[in-house]
Amino acid sequence: MARQKALRLKTVASMLGLPMEGDGELLLNGISTLDSAGPDELSFLSNPKYRKLLKDSNAGALIVHPSVAEDVRGACIIADDPYLAFARASALFDPFERPRDGIHPTAVVAAEAVHATASIGANAVIEVGAVIEEGCVIGPGCVVGAGSTIGAHSLLHANVTVYHGVSIGRACVIHSGTVIGADGFGFAPSAEGWQKIHQLGGVSIGDNVEIGANSCIDRGALKDTRIGSGVILDDMTMVGHNVEIGDGTAMAAGCQIAGSAKIGKNCTLAGNVGVVGHITIADGVHLTARSLVSKSLDAAASYSSGGTPLMETRQWRKTTARLPKLDELYRRVQTLEKMIRTIQEDSN
Amino acid sequence: MARQKALRLKTVASMLGLPMEGDGELLLNGISTLDSAGPDELSFLSNPKYRKLLKDSNAGALIVHPSVAEDVRGACIIADDPYLAFARASALFDPFERPRDGIHPTAVVAAEAVHATASIGANAVIEVGAVIEEGCVIGPGCVVGAGSTIGAHSLLHANVTVYHGVSIGRACVIHSGTVIGADGFGFAPSAEGWQKIHQLGGVSIGDNVEIGANSCIDRGALKDTRIGSGVILDDMTMVGHNVEIGDGTAMAAGCQIAGSAKIGKNCTLAGNVGVVGHITIADGVHLTARSLVSKSLDAAASYSSGGTPLMETRQWRKTTARLPKLDELYRRVQTLEKMIRTIQEDSN
Amino acid sequence: MARQKALRLKTVASMLGLPMEGDGELLLNGISTLDSAGPDELSFLSNPKYRKLLKDSNAGALIVHPSVAEDVRGACIIADDPYLAFARASALFDPFERPRDGIHPTAVVAAEAVHATASIGANAVIEVGAVIEEGCVIGPGCVVGAGSTIGAHSLLHANVTVYHGVSIGRACVIHSGTVIGADGFGFAPSAEGWQKIHQLGGVSIGDNVEIGANSCIDRGALKDTRIGSGVILDDMTMVGHNVEIGDGTAMAAGCQIAGSAKIGKNCTLAGNVGVVGHITIADGVHLTARSLVSKSLDAAASYSSGGTPLMETRQWRKTTARLPKLDELYRRVQTLEKMIRTIQEDSN
Repeated sequence: MARQKALRLKTVASMLGLPMEGDGELLLNGISTLDSAGPDELSFLSNPKYRKLLKDSNAGALIVHPSVAEDVRGACIIADDPYLAFARASALFDPFERPRDGIHPTAVVAAEAVHATASIGANAVIEVGAVIEEGCVIGPGCVVGAGSTIGAHSLLHANVTVYHGVSIGRACVIHSGTVIGADGFGFAPSAEGWQKIHQLGGVSIGDNVEIGANSCIDRGALKDTRIGSGVILDDMTMVGHNVEIGDGTAMAAGCQIAGSAKIGKNCTLAGNVGVVGHITIADGVHLTARSLVSKSLDAAASYSSGGTPLMETRQWRKTTARLPKLDELYRRVQTLEKMIRTIQEDSN
Repeated sequence: MARQKALRLKTVASMLGLPMEGDGELLLNGISTLDSAGPDELSFLSNPKYRKLLKDSNAGALIVHPSVAEDVRGACIIADDPYLAFARASALFDPFERPRDGIHPTAVVAAEAVHATASIGANAVIEVGAVIEEGCVIGPGCVVGAGSTIGAHSLLHANVTVYHGVSIGRACVIHSGTVIGADGFGFAPSAEGWQKIHQLGGVSIGDNVEIGANSCIDRGALKDTRIGSGVILDDMTMVGHNVEIGDGTAMAAGCQIAGSAKIGKNCTLAGNVGVVGHITIADGVHLTARSLVSKSLDAAASYSSGGTPLMETRQWRKTTARLPKLDELYRRVQTLEKMIRTIQEDSN
Repeated sequence: MARQKALRLKTVASMLGLPMEGDGELLLNGISTLDSAGPDELSFLSNPKYRKLLKDSNAGALIVHPSVAEDVRGACIIADDPYLAFARASALFDPFERPRDGIHPTAVVAAEAVHATASIGANAVIEVGAVIEEGCVIGPGCVVGAGSTIGAHSLLHANVTVYHGVSIGRACVIHSGTVIGADGFGFAPSAEGWQKIHQLGGVSIGDNVEIGANSCIDRGALKDTRIGSGVILDDMTMVGHNVEIGDGTAMAAGCQIAGSAKIGKNCTLAGNVGVVGHITIADGVHLTARSLVSKSLDAAASYSSGGTPLMETRQWRKTTARLPKLDELYRRVQTLEKMIRTIQEDSN
């Protein structure tokens, strides 16, 4: 674990633009959780409901809601949304420094349009016609394909691969191992086997997008695969060709979006949700973990699919052994209902 | 999105070996979908059933079945299988050019057997004893392990990793981030913990195979993991050690094949299908999305598993709460049936 | 498939510290399975129950349990746990040699603490402040971030990415494409969209850990993500931020562990098990393939979830069509039971 930056409380409050109480000179050596923060650390209480936890915390300073400020024994920063203030504070303490070293001598840069303020890491490869805008960081071992654009202040961590014909917006963060612009899975059957359909589209990604490690965003078949602005995708996300993802949508790790699916804005997909191809999901839809979306969803609501809840394997085997007989069981109940009605009618 | 190549209609028809009608001099700036193609673009109608859509298309030229050629107002290419002809045409318009630059000065090539016509990208590493056959393209940042062979005209996109002892056939395409030949998951339990079983087999891949991005094909424990010719695997496919996959089989993204499974020829696995270890799947089997194959399948048919269809989370919670009681419900219905029979017999 | 090393039988027995019978001078050209081993190969019979298979084997030598040694026609090595002895023997025949070449001239090493016995591959990048201990092998194209530590004798295969602030113990093996220390998925909602929570923790990995290809181990939010010693993770494992995994736990390919989950020691997770965030799993729990753990598990036992067993798609459609009506079916059976009771009471 890397050591966090050290900052005085007053500096943090000032950078967050928030009021504080207590000793502003207090030197904070980082942020920690409520139960493990020490007297030289900052912590936060996101939900006033848990205010009783405050008395057990040894944190040197706390970010809290105005309604609980009176319960804080030490120093505090006061915020209407303490969790959001904590998120902003986390950037201040982050010891990770974006490199500002220009083009590393071992990088292979065939492109002319690398901005003077961009940093290109060791052994990175920037192919002909690519555009690397101001303040970009291209990590070691990254490859940016011919004619692709990386927008201003975007950060590609080490070993990211961007194919040709990809456009990434401003202030994006792409984690290591992620591949953007590989061919979509398009093949036509023929007597000689699968005939590849060359994928002639590209990938277009908006601004402020974060994509986790070892993800794949495939290029479109005839038009671009599109990811809106403010989208956040966790590790190992798979986005097929021609998919469109609306602004602000979030996907936890391992989601798999099949080709030509269209996902609305501000949707939230929990871990490992699957979406079949060629369907449309409305804005604001929520999907629970491991759901498989097999049809279009027109209304903002929470949806689920998936099987049995977790149980001991023995019981689970019994249950799943019955499942293939469910249709038969249903019919047997219908028969029983008819028989009962007959019996009742007879007895009347 | 990269600009596609420009070709005259007559050139396209001639390269496809297909008849055309209309102005062969028409310059086509690419292929597009039926509804978005403009007068300088080629499109296609794969299914004559949708011939009524033709009148709304502005495509400059169309690939169509002979039976609908009369409906086409502009130029057309006539094909018995328009979708296949489109697939072939996509190769002609693809702006991606295979590099033909020989060995990049930053590549580290310890192998002697790199064909003079092969291209080795920047910062690629070819270890001792590897064989890179004619016309191969090894992308930037790729690593090809000791003694491995890449067959003629195969293409490894950037940042592919091939371990030692791997054999890849001719005309294969491997996408970025894919790892071929990592150790299979073999460990023996011991009093001191898991004892690694060194994976002494390799990987053997046929001709005309395409493997999507960020996939893993593990090396065999004592013999090779084998992938037949003409196999197509989408992104994030995981193939365990000793697996055998027959010629022509296709897997959509995220399929996971556990060790020693044997999958037949010309199977189609939809997205994220799982196959448990040590089972056999016959030729021509089809599996729907997210099915888990937990037993051998002897007959060519379509199989499925998986849970409830997608529903609103509230209803899904009710349903899945009942599932663990399914065996009990089944028994209660049996009891009811007996009771009814008794009542009926009594009343007779 | 790479040729295995050649060793005399007596050498193998001696290196395993086990007694042998037969011609110790026999030159073994490798290990193979019982049914395919030839007269110059070693094989093994792990379970005495299958001793009848011995007579059909052409293996030159066998590792067997003392109770079956008399059935072996040729030479043998005698072991109380033949499977474990085979695992140990596999290391002897493995042709893969760890490179011992020091720092490759194309590697970019900003760190001072690279041990003289470590090997740094071509085009690898070791950032400032990183520590590479004795006997380590860092493969070609790997990136080790600032201040991270790779413990003695650990092996990073090609193209592994380790972020800053990561600590990997001794004798670990990390396969290609794996990313350790990427940001956990932490974002706070705000009026302007998702506000990134900088991930200030690191990753701490014990000794003798093996991690398969294309896996992701995310860094913690405020403390380290922790993986105990002797843990084995197969390809494409996803471990979210703040997760803790106890010593000796094994996960087959594609497991997905959401943030802040705590998994005990010596658990076994079959392929593609999912674990939701913030739950605790006791030591010694076993989970079957594709189970989703949605609640804490306090007792060592085998657990499962998941849907219908595999069936023909037609039958599966019928079954799953009934599933959303399961709650209704349950209520109808309850009604039937009441009616029957009423009928019976009336007839008494």
